[in-house]
Amino acid sequence: MADCLFCKIAAREIPGDIVHADERLIAFGDINPQAPTHVLIIPRRHISTLNDLTAGDTDLVGEMVHLASRIAADRGHAAAGYRTVFNCNAAAGQTVFHIHLHLLAGRDMTWPPG
Amino acid sequence: MADCLFCKIAAREIPGDIVHADERLIAFGDINPQAPTHVLIIPRRHISTLNDLTAGDTDLVGEMVHLASRIAADRGHAAAGYRTVFNCNAAAGQTVFHIHLHLLAGRDMTWPPG
Repeated sequence: MADCLFCKIAAREIPGDIVHADERLIAFGDINPQAPTHVLIIPRRHISTLNDLTAGDTDLVGEMVHLASRIAADRGHAAAGYRTVFNCNAAAGQTVFHIHLHLLAGRDMTWPPG
Repeated sequence: MADCLFCKIAAREIPGDIVHADERLIAFGDINPQAPTHVLIIPRRHISTLNDLTAGDTDLVGEMVHLASRIAADRGHAAAGYRTVFNCNAAAGQTVFHIHLHLLAGRDMTWPPG
Protein backbone atom coordinates (compact mmCIF):
# COMPACT_ATOMS: atom_id res chain seq x y z
CA MET A 1 0.00 0.00 0.00
CA ALA A 2 1.58 3.24 -1.17
CA ASP A 3 0.41 5.29 1.81
CA CYS A 4 0.97 2.72 4.56
CA LEU A 5 3.58 3.62 7.19
CA PHE A 6 4.41 0.01 7.97
CA CYS A 7 4.69 -1.00 4.33
CA LYS A 8 7.21 1.83 3.99
CA ILE A 9 9.19 0.64 7.00
CA ALA A 10 9.17 -2.91 5.58
CA ALA A 11 10.44 -1.54 2.25
CA ARG A 12 13.10 0.52 4.07
CA GLU A 13 11.64 3.69 2.60
CA ILE A 14 11.22 5.03 6.14
CA PRO A 15 13.81 4.24 8.81
CA GLY A 16 12.83 1.92 11.62
CA ASP A 17 14.65 0.27 14.51
CA ILE A 18 14.62 -3.07 12.69
CA VAL A 19 15.35 -6.04 14.96
CA HIS A 20 14.39 -8.85 12.56
CA ALA A 21 13.69 -9.21 8.85
CA ASP A 22 12.95 -12.33 6.81
CA GLU A 23 11.01 -13.12 3.66
CA ARG A 24 7.63 -12.78 5.31
CA LEU A 25 8.03 -10.75 8.51
CA ILE A 26 9.69 -7.60 9.87
CA ALA A 27 10.12 -6.64 13.53
CA PHE A 28 11.08 -3.22 14.82
CA GLY A 29 11.00 -1.22 18.03
CA ASP A 30 7.81 0.70 18.88
CA ILE A 31 8.51 4.44 18.70
CA ASN A 32 6.52 4.97 21.91
CA PRO A 33 7.60 1.98 23.99
CA GLN A 34 5.40 0.88 26.89
CA ALA A 35 7.89 -1.59 28.37
CA PRO A 36 11.69 -2.09 28.32
CA THR A 37 11.15 -4.40 25.36
CA HIS A 38 8.35 -3.22 23.06
CA VAL A 39 8.69 -4.64 19.58
CA LEU A 40 6.17 -4.67 16.73
CA ILE A 41 6.02 -7.68 14.42
CA ILE A 42 4.40 -7.18 11.03
CA PRO A 43 3.95 -9.19 7.86
CA ARG A 44 5.53 -7.69 4.75
CA ARG A 45 2.21 -8.24 3.00
CA HIS A 46 -0.34 -5.54 3.71
CA ILE A 47 -3.31 -6.75 5.78
CA SER A 48 -5.27 -3.86 7.27
CA THR A 49 -6.88 -5.39 10.35
CA LEU A 50 -7.55 -8.75 11.97
CA ASN A 51 -11.00 -8.55 10.36
CA ASP A 52 -9.29 -9.04 7.01
CA LEU A 53 -7.67 -12.37 7.89
CA THR A 54 -8.66 -15.38 5.85
CA ALA A 55 -8.11 -19.07 6.52
CA GLY A 56 -5.11 -18.84 4.20
CA ASP A 57 -3.38 -16.39 6.55
CA THR A 58 -3.25 -18.57 9.63
CA ASP A 59 0.30 -19.80 9.10
CA LEU A 60 1.53 -16.24 8.57
CA VAL A 61 -0.17 -14.96 11.73
CA GLY A 62 1.13 -17.90 13.73
CA GLU A 63 4.63 -17.10 12.48
CA MET A 64 4.18 -13.61 13.92
CA VAL A 65 3.43 -15.04 17.37
CA HIS A 66 6.27 -17.54 17.08
CA LEU A 67 8.68 -14.75 16.13
CA ALA A 68 7.52 -12.76 19.17
CA SER A 69 8.41 -15.72 21.39
CA ARG A 70 11.82 -16.05 19.74
CA ILE A 71 12.62 -12.35 20.13
CA ALA A 72 11.53 -12.55 23.78
CA ALA A 73 13.83 -15.52 24.28
CA ASP A 74 16.73 -13.82 22.50
CA ARG A 75 16.39 -10.87 24.87
CA GLY A 76 16.27 -13.05 27.97
CA HIS A 77 12.56 -12.64 28.74
CA ALA A 78 11.39 -16.22 28.22
CA ALA A 79 11.51 -17.34 31.85
CA ALA A 80 10.13 -14.17 33.45
CA GLY A 81 7.49 -13.74 30.77
CA TYR A 82 6.01 -11.39 28.20
CA ARG A 83 2.70 -10.30 26.68
CA THR A 84 1.64 -10.12 23.04
CA VAL A 85 -1.23 -7.89 21.88
CA PHE A 86 -3.13 -7.40 18.64
CA ASN A 87 -5.40 -4.35 18.45
CA CYS A 88 -8.20 -4.28 15.92
CA ASN A 89 -9.84 -0.97 15.07
CA ALA A 90 -10.60 2.08 17.18
CA ALA A 91 -12.01 0.53 20.37
CA ALA A 92 -8.69 -1.27 20.84
CA GLY A 93 -6.59 1.72 19.82
CA GLN A 94 -5.32 0.50 16.45
CA THR A 95 -3.71 3.53 14.80
CA VAL A 96 -1.76 2.02 11.89
CA PHE A 97 -3.93 -0.08 9.62
CA HIS A 98 -1.40 -2.78 8.80
CA ILE A 99 -1.65 -5.63 11.30
CA HIS A 100 1.08 -5.58 13.94
CA LEU A 101 1.69 -7.74 16.97
CA HIS A 102 2.95 -5.92 20.06
CA LEU A 103 5.52 -7.78 22.14
CA LEU A 104 5.94 -6.26 25.62
CA ALA A 105 8.48 -7.54 28.12
CA GLY A 106 10.93 -6.50 30.78
CA ARG A 107 8.43 -5.43 33.43
CA ASP A 108 5.46 -6.92 35.27
CA MET A 109 2.28 -6.44 33.25
CA THR A 110 -1.01 -5.64 35.01
CA TRP A 111 -4.57 -6.93 34.52
CA PRO A 112 -6.84 -6.10 32.80
CA PRO A 113 -4.75 -5.58 29.69
CA GLY A 114 -5.94 -2.03 29.14
CA MET B 1 -2.26 -33.37 30.65
CA ALA B 2 -4.13 -35.04 33.50
CA ASP B 3 -3.89 -32.09 35.87
CA CYS B 4 -4.50 -29.27 33.39
CA LEU B 5 -7.66 -27.22 33.94
CA PHE B 6 -7.99 -26.27 30.28
CA CYS B 7 -7.40 -29.81 29.04
CA LYS B 8 -10.29 -30.82 31.33
CA ILE B 9 -12.54 -28.09 29.94
CA ALA B 10 -11.64 -29.18 26.39
CA ALA B 11 -12.49 -32.78 27.32
CA ARG B 12 -15.77 -31.63 28.95
CA GLU B 13 -14.64 -33.09 32.26
CA ILE B 14 -15.11 -29.67 33.84
CA PRO B 15 -17.97 -27.41 32.71
CA GLY B 16 -17.14 -24.29 30.77
CA ASP B 17 -19.15 -21.64 28.98
CA ILE B 18 -18.20 -23.14 25.61
CA VAL B 19 -18.81 -20.78 22.69
CA HIS B 20 -16.95 -22.73 19.99
CA ALA B 21 -15.53 -26.22 19.54
CA ASP B 22 -13.89 -27.83 16.53
CA GLU B 23 -11.29 -30.52 15.93
CA ARG B 24 -8.39 -28.34 17.00
CA LEU B 25 -9.73 -25.44 19.08
CA ILE B 26 -12.12 -24.67 21.93
CA ALA B 27 -13.38 -21.24 22.98
CA PHE B 28 -15.14 -20.42 26.24
CA GLY B 29 -16.00 -17.43 28.39
CA ASP B 30 -13.41 -16.21 30.90
CA ILE B 31 -14.71 -16.84 34.44
CA ASN B 32 -13.47 -13.38 35.50
CA PRO B 33 -14.37 -11.26 32.47
CA GLN B 34 -12.61 -7.95 31.96
CA ALA B 35 -14.85 -6.73 29.15
CA PRO B 36 -18.42 -7.38 27.96
CA THR B 37 -16.95 -10.01 25.63
CA HIS B 38 -14.04 -11.87 27.18
CA VAL B 39 -13.47 -15.23 25.55
CA LEU B 40 -10.50 -17.59 25.83
CA ILE B 41 -9.40 -19.56 22.78
CA ILE B 42 -7.29 -22.65 23.40
CA PRO B 43 -5.92 -25.51 21.33
CA ARG B 44 -7.13 -28.98 22.33
CA ARG B 45 -3.49 -30.06 22.33
CA HIS B 46 -1.63 -29.16 25.49
CA ILE B 47 1.06 -26.51 24.97
CA SER B 48 2.18 -24.97 28.25
CA THR B 49 3.43 -21.53 27.20
CA LEU B 50 4.37 -19.53 24.12
CA ASN B 51 7.96 -20.53 24.88
CA ASP B 52 7.02 -24.08 23.90
CA LEU B 53 5.85 -23.20 20.38
CA THR B 54 7.72 -24.77 17.51
CA ALA B 55 7.71 -23.90 13.82
CA GLY B 56 5.17 -26.71 13.37
CA ASP B 57 2.65 -24.92 15.58
CA THR B 58 2.33 -21.74 13.56
CA ASP B 59 -0.79 -22.76 11.67
CA LEU B 60 -2.50 -23.79 14.92
CA VAL B 61 -1.66 -20.51 16.64
CA GLY B 62 -2.78 -18.53 13.63
CA GLU B 63 -6.06 -20.42 13.71
CA MET B 64 -6.51 -19.23 17.28
CA VAL B 65 -6.17 -15.59 16.19
CA HIS B 66 -8.44 -16.15 13.20
CA LEU B 67 -11.07 -17.74 15.45
CA ALA B 68 -10.86 -14.73 17.78
CA SER B 69 -11.61 -12.46 14.82
CA ARG B 70 -14.55 -14.64 13.77
CA ILE B 71 -16.04 -14.70 17.28
CA ALA B 72 -15.62 -10.91 17.48
CA ALA B 73 -17.43 -10.57 14.16
CA ASP B 74 -20.20 -12.97 15.20
CA ARG B 75 -20.82 -10.83 18.28
CA GLY B 76 -20.91 -7.60 16.32
CA HIS B 77 -17.53 -6.23 17.46
CA ALA B 78 -15.68 -6.23 14.14
CA ALA B 79 -16.27 -2.60 13.21
CA ALA B 80 -15.78 -1.05 16.65
CA GLY B 81 -12.82 -3.27 17.42
CA TYR B 82 -11.32 -5.74 19.88
CA ARG B 83 -8.01 -6.73 21.47
CA THR B 84 -6.34 -10.15 21.66
CA VAL B 85 -3.74 -10.99 24.30
CA PHE B 86 -1.38 -13.87 24.98
CA ASN B 87 0.32 -13.91 28.39
CA CYS B 88 3.50 -15.93 28.84
CA ASN B 89 4.66 -16.76 32.35
CA ALA B 90 4.47 -14.81 35.60
CA ALA B 91 5.50 -11.31 34.51
CA ALA B 92 2.54 -11.27 32.14
CA GLY B 93 0.17 -12.89 34.64
CA GLN B 94 -0.23 -16.31 33.02
CA THR B 95 -2.00 -18.47 35.61
CA VAL B 96 -3.09 -21.54 33.61
CA PHE B 97 -0.21 -23.20 31.82
CA HIS B 98 -2.04 -24.21 28.67
CA ILE B 99 -1.76 -21.48 26.06
CA HIS B 100 -4.89 -19.36 25.73
CA LEU B 101 -5.68 -16.31 23.66
CA HIS B 102 -7.79 -13.66 25.37
CA LEU B 103 -10.35 -11.90 23.18
CA LEU B 104 -11.64 -8.69 24.78
CA ALA B 105 -14.34 -6.57 23.19
CA GLY B 106 -17.40 -4.47 23.89
CA ARG B 107 -15.66 -1.52 25.54
CA ASP B 108 -12.85 0.91 24.73
CA MET B 109 -9.48 -0.55 25.69
CA THR B 110 -6.76 1.69 27.17
CA TRP B 111 -3.02 1.93 26.53
CA PRO B 112 -0.64 0.56 27.67
CA PRO B 113 -2.19 -2.90 27.65
CA GLY B 114 -1.54 -3.53 31.33
